[in-house]
Amino acid sequence: MKNFNYYIPTRIFFGPGSIKELSQTKLPGNKALIVISAGQSMKKFGYLQRVQDLLKTNNCESVVFDKILPNPVKSHVMEGADLARRENCDFIVGLGGGSSIDTAKSIALMVKNPGDYWDYIHGGSGQGKLYKEAVLPVVAITTTAGTGTEADPWTVITNEEKQEKIGFGGDDFFPVFSIVDPELMLSIPPELTAFQGFDAFFHAAEGYIAKIATPISDAYALQSMALIAEYLPKAIKNGKDLEARTQIALANTLSGMVESTSSCTSEHSMEHALSAYHPSLPHGAGLIMLSESYFRHFSSVCPERLIKMAKTMGKEGETADDFISALLKLQNDCGVAGLKMSDYGIQKSEIHKIAENAHHTMGGLYDMDRQTLSHQDTVDIITAAFK
Amino acid sequence: MKNFNYYIPTRIFFGPGSIKELSQTKLPGNKALIVISAGQSMKKFGYLQRVQDLLKTNNCESVVFDKILPNPVKSHVMEGADLARRENCDFIVGLGGGSSIDTAKSIALMVKNPGDYWDYIHGGSGQGKLYKEAVLPVVAITTTAGTGTEADPWTVITNEEKQEKIGFGGDDFFPVFSIVDPELMLSIPPELTAFQGFDAFFHAAEGYIAKIATPISDAYALQSMALIAEYLPKAIKNGKDLEARTQIALANTLSGMVESTSSCTSEHSMEHALSAYHPSLPHGAGLIMLSESYFRHFSSVCPERLIKMAKTMGKEGETADDFISALLKLQNDCGVAGLKMSDYGIQKSEIHKIAENAHHTMGGLYDMDRQTLSHQDTVDIITAAFK
Repeated sequence: MKNFNYYIPTRIFFGPGSIKELSQTKLPGNKALIVISAGQSMKKFGYLQRVQDLLKTNNCESVVFDKILPNPVKSHVMEGADLARRENCDFIVGLGGGSSIDTAKSIALMVKNPGDYWDYIHGGSGQGKLYKEAVLPVVAITTTAGTGTEADPWTVITNEEKQEKIGFGGDDFFPVFSIVDPELMLSIPPELTAFQGFDAFFHAAEGYIAKIATPISDAYALQSMALIAEYLPKAIKNGKDLEARTQIALANTLSGMVESTSSCTSEHSMEHALSAYHPSLPHGAGLIMLSESYFRHFSSVCPERLIKMAKTMGKEGETADDFISALLKLQNDCGVAGLKMSDYGIQKSEIHKIAENAHHTMGGLYDMDRQTLSHQDTVDIITAAFK
Repeated sequence: MKNFNYYIPTRIFFGPGSIKELSQTKLPGNKALIVISAGQSMKKFGYLQRVQDLLKTNNCESVVFDKILPNPVKSHVMEGADLARRENCDFIVGLGGGSSIDTAKSIALMVKNPGDYWDYIHGGSGQGKLYKEAVLPVVAITTTAGTGTEADPWTVITNEEKQEKIGFGGDDFFPVFSIVDPELMLSIPPELTAFQGFDAFFHAAEGYIAKIATPISDAYALQSMALIAEYLPKAIKNGKDLEARTQIALANTLSGMVESTSSCTSEHSMEHALSAYHPSLPHGAGLIMLSESYFRHFSSVCPERLIKMAKTMGKEGETADDFISALLKLQNDCGVAGLKMSDYGIQKSEIHKIAENAHHTMGGLYDMDRQTLSHQDTVDIITAAFK
C-alpha cells in the first residue's frame, strides 16, 4: 500500500429537508454572494427564495449573481468577484449544479487576489502564479447529483477566449459546509439526471482505477458505483422517487470524496477537450461517449480493478469485460446508449486537435493513469468512441 | 435512508515513514505537551526522542507528561492540564495508544476550562456542564492499531474514585492532524496486537449494526473488517510484517472514521463496566469475551447486516450464524479464543452490578442498538459470555 494523506474538512448535511440547516448552522460570514445559473430553475422552483429566506433567518444578507452557464466561464468568475467586492460579501454560496458551485469556488479566490483568474491556473496558457491573499469561505448547496464538487476542493472553469477548460483547487477550496438535500433534485429532467449521474459514476470509476487510489477512496468509489448501478435507472424513470434521488445524491457525494482522496484520470482530460471546443456538449454525455473505449483500453492494464467494479455493479465479475458489459447495460437502462459525438457537431477531423488539447490543458490527469497514454493512444480512444 | 451529518476534519498522514511530517507540517502552536504512557516503550524504542527532535526541527518546544495508564484516569487528566498550564503549552500531542491520545484530548479541554474534568461529563456521576473556554488543538501520533481515536472526536477516561469509565467528546476534539505510521507499530507484542486489532474490529462491527449507521460509515466499516480478517493473524504471527501492520493500521483508522460517522453500541458499555471494576482487563480482551453472545443476540435483530459482515470477512455469508463462525475463526486464528473473564478476577456474582454500571455510566450507547436491551438482556449476554 502506498502512503497517503486524507483530508476532507467539509461538513456535509445530507438528506431530504437538510436545506433548513442554512437557518440554524453557524455561517462563515455576514453577507453572502449567492451564485446561480443563468437558467430559470433556481427561481422557478423557489430554491433561490428559500435560500435567501433561510439566510435572512440566520441574520445573513445576500446578493445574487445569476449568470452561470452549464460550462462555466472565466469572465463570469471575474464579474462575480467584482460584484462580491463591491457588495462587501464575505462568503460565497454556490447554489445549483457543479457549474454554479465551481464558479463560487473560483470567485472565492478572486475576491481578494489581484489580476486575472487565469494568472493562477496551471496548464494551458495559465500563468501558474501562487495566490497570496485568502480565499473566501464557500458554502455549497447542490441541486444536482453530478460533480461531487460539494465534497471536493476542485473547480473547473473554461477560458472562453483560449478554449481551455481547466481544473484548479486545493485545501483552501473545500466548502466550509455543504448541503445535499435530495428534495431539491426532484425537478431535474430525466436526460440531465442521466448525464449527471454518469459524471458521478466516472468520478468513482476513474478514481478507482487511478494509480493514486487508496483503500479509503476505493471504499467510497465502490459504494458510489453500487448505488448508481442500482438507483440511477430508477431516478431517471421516476424523478419524484425520493429514495432513488437520495441514493443517487449520496453516490454523488461519495464520488466527490473520491475526488478528494484519489483523482480523475485522462478520460476527464479528453472530455474537457471535447466540451472546450463544443460547449453545448454536456460533460456527462461526453464521458458516456468516451467510456467504452477508454475503459476497454484499461481492461488489460488493471483487469482485477475492472472485475471488482463489475462485482460492485451486481455482475458476476469474472473478467474485465464484465465491467464493460455492466457499463453498457447501465447506459442502456438509463437511455443514453445511443449518444453520438456527431450529433453535437464534433467531427472526426478534429480528433487530433482534441487529443492535443487534452494533453496540453489537463495533462496532469494523464499522470494519474496506471499506464501512461501517448498522444496516439488518446487519438485511438477518441476515434474508437466516435459515432 | 436516514439523514446524516458527515464531519471528519482531521488531516491524516498515513503510511510508513509518515512521522517525518511532524517536521514539515504547519503545527497548531509553538509549545507542545507530549502525553505518553507510564510504560517504557515510547522511550525504549526512541519514538519520544524522535518526536521531540522533529518538533524541534519545526521550531517547536515540548514538555513531556509520562504517566498514562492503559485505562487512563481522571487524575492524570487534571495533572497533565496543570503541567500544560504551568509550562504555557499551546497544543497537546498524544503519542502512543488510545490511552495517551484520549488523555491528550481530555487535557486539551481542561487547560483553559475551570473545575474538575468530571464536571463536564455526561453519564454516571458527571455534572454535564457546558465548557465555555477553547479546547486546545490536539495532534495524535498513534503507535498502536486499536482505538481509532486519531480519526474520531472521542475520549474515554476512568474516574478511579467512582469506578466510572465514560466517553466524552465532540467536534472540538478531532485532532488537527494525525500521524499513522506503521513503522512505529512493529514493536507491539503479539497479544497486544490481537487485543487492539479486535478493538478496532468491534468499532467497525458495532458501528455497522448501530441504528445510526449510514452508507458512508458502512463503507468504512466493511473495509475495516475485511482488512482485519485478512491481516490481523499475519500481524500477530510476524510483528515485523510491515505490509500486515500497514493494513491493520489502516483498518484501525477506518474504524475511527466509523466512530465519527456511526457509533459504538452497548457492547462497549458492557466492556467499559467490566474494566472499570477490573482495570487489569485489556479493553480489547473484554470485547472479545463479550462478542460471541453479544452478536448472537443481534443475529435475529439484523440478520442481513451479519450476513454482510460475514461476506466482507471472506465467508459465504448465507445466514447470520456465518458471521458468528467467522468471528470465532478469527479469534482462533489470532490466538485469543480461550480468554476467560475468571482469569481476570471477574466473578459471576458481579454480573448484576456490572450490568447496572454499563447502563448507568454509558447508557447512551444502548440507544444506538437496533433493539433496546433491558437490564436482564445485558445480564444474559454477560452471563452467556462468562467463563
